[in-house]
Amino acid sequence: MKISLLPTLLFTLLISFVSISQNAVQDSVMLKKLYTTALTDGKAYDWLDYLSNEIGGRLSGSYEAELAVIYTEAELKELGLDKVWLQPVMVPKWTRGFKEYAYIESPTGDKTITNICALGGSVPTPNLGIKAEVVEVKGLEELAALGREKLEGKIVFYNRPMQPELIQTFEAYGGCVDQRYSGAAEAAKFGAVGVIVRSLSLRMDDFPHTGAMSYGDTPVNQRIPAAAISTNGAEYLSSLLKLQPNLLFYFKQNCKTFDDVQSYNVIGEITGSTKPNEYMVVGGHLDSWDLADGAHDDGAGCVQSMEVLRLFKKVGYRPNHTIRVVLFMNEENGLRGGKKYAEEAKRKNETHRFALESDAGGFTPRGFTFDTDAANFKKVQSWEGLFKPYLIHYFEKGYGGADIGPLKGNINVLAGLRPDSQRYFDYHHAANDTFDAVNKRELELGAATMASLVYLFDKYGTE
Amino acid sequence: MKISLLPTLLFTLLISFVSISQNAVQDSVMLKKLYTTALTDGKAYDWLDYLSNEIGGRLSGSYEAELAVIYTEAELKELGLDKVWLQPVMVPKWTRGFKEYAYIESPTGDKTITNICALGGSVPTPNLGIKAEVVEVKGLEELAALGREKLEGKIVFYNRPMQPELIQTFEAYGGCVDQRYSGAAEAAKFGAVGVIVRSLSLRMDDFPHTGAMSYGDTPVNQRIPAAAISTNGAEYLSSLLKLQPNLLFYFKQNCKTFDDVQSYNVIGEITGSTKPNEYMVVGGHLDSWDLADGAHDDGAGCVQSMEVLRLFKKVGYRPNHTIRVVLFMNEENGLRGGKKYAEEAKRKNETHRFALESDAGGFTPRGFTFDTDAANFKKVQSWEGLFKPYLIHYFEKGYGGADIGPLKGNINVLAGLRPDSQRYFDYHHAANDTFDAVNKRELELGAATMASLVYLFDKYGTE
Repeated sequence: MKISLLPTLLFTLLISFVSISQNAVQDSVMLKKLYTTALTDGKAYDWLDYLSNEIGGRLSGSYEAELAVIYTEAELKELGLDKVWLQPVMVPKWTRGFKEYAYIESPTGDKTITNICALGGSVPTPNLGIKAEVVEVKGLEELAALGREKLEGKIVFYNRPMQPELIQTFEAYGGCVDQRYSGAAEAAKFGAVGVIVRSLSLRMDDFPHTGAMSYGDTPVNQRIPAAAISTNGAEYLSSLLKLQPNLLFYFKQNCKTFDDVQSYNVIGEITGSTKPNEYMVVGGHLDSWDLADGAHDDGAGCVQSMEVLRLFKKVGYRPNHTIRVVLFMNEENGLRGGKKYAEEAKRKNETHRFALESDAGGFTPRGFTFDTDAANFKKVQSWEGLFKPYLIHYFEKGYGGADIGPLKGNINVLAGLRPDSQRYFDYHHAANDTFDAVNKRELELGAATMASLVYLFDKYGTE
Repeated sequence: MKISLLPTLLFTLLISFVSISQNAVQDSVMLKKLYTTALTDGKAYDWLDYLSNEIGGRLSGSYEAELAVIYTEAELKELGLDKVWLQPVMVPKWTRGFKEYAYIESPTGDKTITNICALGGSVPTPNLGIKAEVVEVKGLEELAALGREKLEGKIVFYNRPMQPELIQTFEAYGGCVDQRYSGAAEAAKFGAVGVIVRSLSLRMDDFPHTGAMSYGDTPVNQRIPAAAISTNGAEYLSSLLKLQPNLLFYFKQNCKTFDDVQSYNVIGEITGSTKPNEYMVVGGHLDSWDLADGAHDDGAGCVQSMEVLRLFKKVGYRPNHTIRVVLFMNEENGLRGGKKYAEEAKRKNETHRFALESDAGGFTPRGFTFDTDAANFKKVQSWEGLFKPYLIHYFEKGYGGADIGPLKGNINVLAGLRPDSQRYFDYHHAANDTFDAVNKRELELGAATMASLVYLFDKYGTE
């Protein structure tokens, strides 16, 4: 027995070694194909051009959002996928109305116009606008410490800047976004009449950055209007307040919330050859804010996700699992699309194995974060070498993404593409998030990186 | 003996373990200080603003180059370094003269104006310009294959594009730059009358990109003018040539070469505390091309190098070795500054241990390449973990840089900063290499990354 076992064992080892190394060669050839095709014969950039320059900002419930649904559905059909459809979802409809108007009024009556924009979901000001003294705070704690006596009848100016020393800019964003999201609800509790929030950007410029806010359980008649002011504007206002603490701030905004309207997630799929009833999803969100074209946020993620399926067709890769591209509607101010997709997946008892989201801009990809268990993460780590030629080096545990988040608990792996984040908040939710801010190669590298990860999870499966 | 040795051995091990981990903590604290200071209290961006917007393009021998010498010398003095001086070096002086003019003339006489720029070092056209038929080639080999019969009296159009599928764009550049550098000398051998070269850029746009060329040993009276055409222009000309092979190309350029003029490398140093006679250099090149402000190439490298010494002063780090910042003159069209610095170092018998160059743009840093031996490279690899929090992951053997290259053979380690390269050639040597193309954080991260490597080599020495 001893004698006969050894050759068998060696043979088995040899076979498994050969098959491992064959796989490694095959995978490295496939990744090269995916990257080369994306960089030499890609479609993502043209799609983004159309979404940005022919359609533009795609706020949920807007005409442009519906045009984007029609356009991307048609483009997915053009790819010859096995199935393309629209998944109905009711979404909020909030409009900005006429452009906002604001000025700082000195005690002697001099007025300096300043750039603001209403936060998404804000109530309008009264028709004649609001004029009041300003109380600057660095955040919600300082607000609470001041109390009603200091805040009643005032405009609260939240001015805690993002921390530039944090290398990952999303961390700096996370450390400030409470001012934008809950600032109005909290200030209303103390009788403030309006809220001005420093834009969540690390760059000093004149663009106000909008974004979602919530009134929480503030009664409708106590809701106060909230706007963002540019970083330059915030610095200016702050320095002026030191000289003239009793200056006045005036702003007028004309936003309006309508009843929910019908919209759609846009979905396409390549049916799996061996596991057609097991799903892998790649997606971004089709809606954007209205101030610009949403080229980085999240036109980029949409066209990269579409490109993943196009690349598979183009290089002739037939996946084992059913691979779906999902362009989610209403990530920005409601997440209705993400919730609806997960709800329907559950209702239909669809087995979801893997979902990948791209919603951090079309910048040079650096890697991924994974919301998964140790076994799947170990699997990912075994692939790191394959990505090295493409300078993809960042594989960490972490957040998948907002739109795929609702799948959690019913899926093995959630993953988020992590592009270089240094410039992201320069454009995020502001009027300069336009097509020219996206570099073609960086966008394409992101798409190829996503396709590579989907390919590997499709080929080897999840744990 | 046996009994008494064991505790000693264990004690020694313990001590060395404690000292290693103390060092690791100390180093990680120092890197954090360097990055935080660069990102919250940096000076690099302001310096670059001045170099770009107050001085502008700094071609060797120009008034602007001399202004840049005066400005950076003054700024280095302002830092309170131990020594700041100018190192004289004679440099070439070539001027573009009046803007170039070019058009494509169809067989029916229709003229289409196209964007060109003279290559650096080119002779002018005759006063009335040159008009001739065009022969398109994909490179020097195809040129040689065509021979004198097909080329005599013609304008040669080099149109081999950079390969988009190469992930590292410098490789794609390296694969095409022979057309620009030697294209005219080679075409002249076959009696061509002029040369038009496709711009070395991966982006399709209307900017012609200049850059150095050489006539080699072509006799003066046989030298032919050479210009770059934008990528869009090249595509257009190529497509037109397919329809109208006998179209004519006209161009006129007014460049001129003068006698060499006096210029300077700008040098500053912090004298080493324990090894004042051993030198470590950090540098970039102060000259640039004339079409724009040389913000990425290489204003960024200069201000980052200056920032390294400023950061050391700011965080209170007193180096062991003498640390020099060298702003080299004339990298672009002569490398005289780099050669002169190495020559003087040799003449004075200065012991150089380490040199780091930044000349690949002010983009997000990814790591370094090292021109060194196994022992020093191993040392570098032991530091990789320290850089991980800053997303610096690329540590490879490779090229140091053009300006520090002449030190080779008399130095232990040459290193080059490797920023993300995807956008570099969009701006390289073209009119859009301006201040607004540089992101403040990306620039600052590069400076901190450089400072961190210099700190580690200073602290632990080279092998």
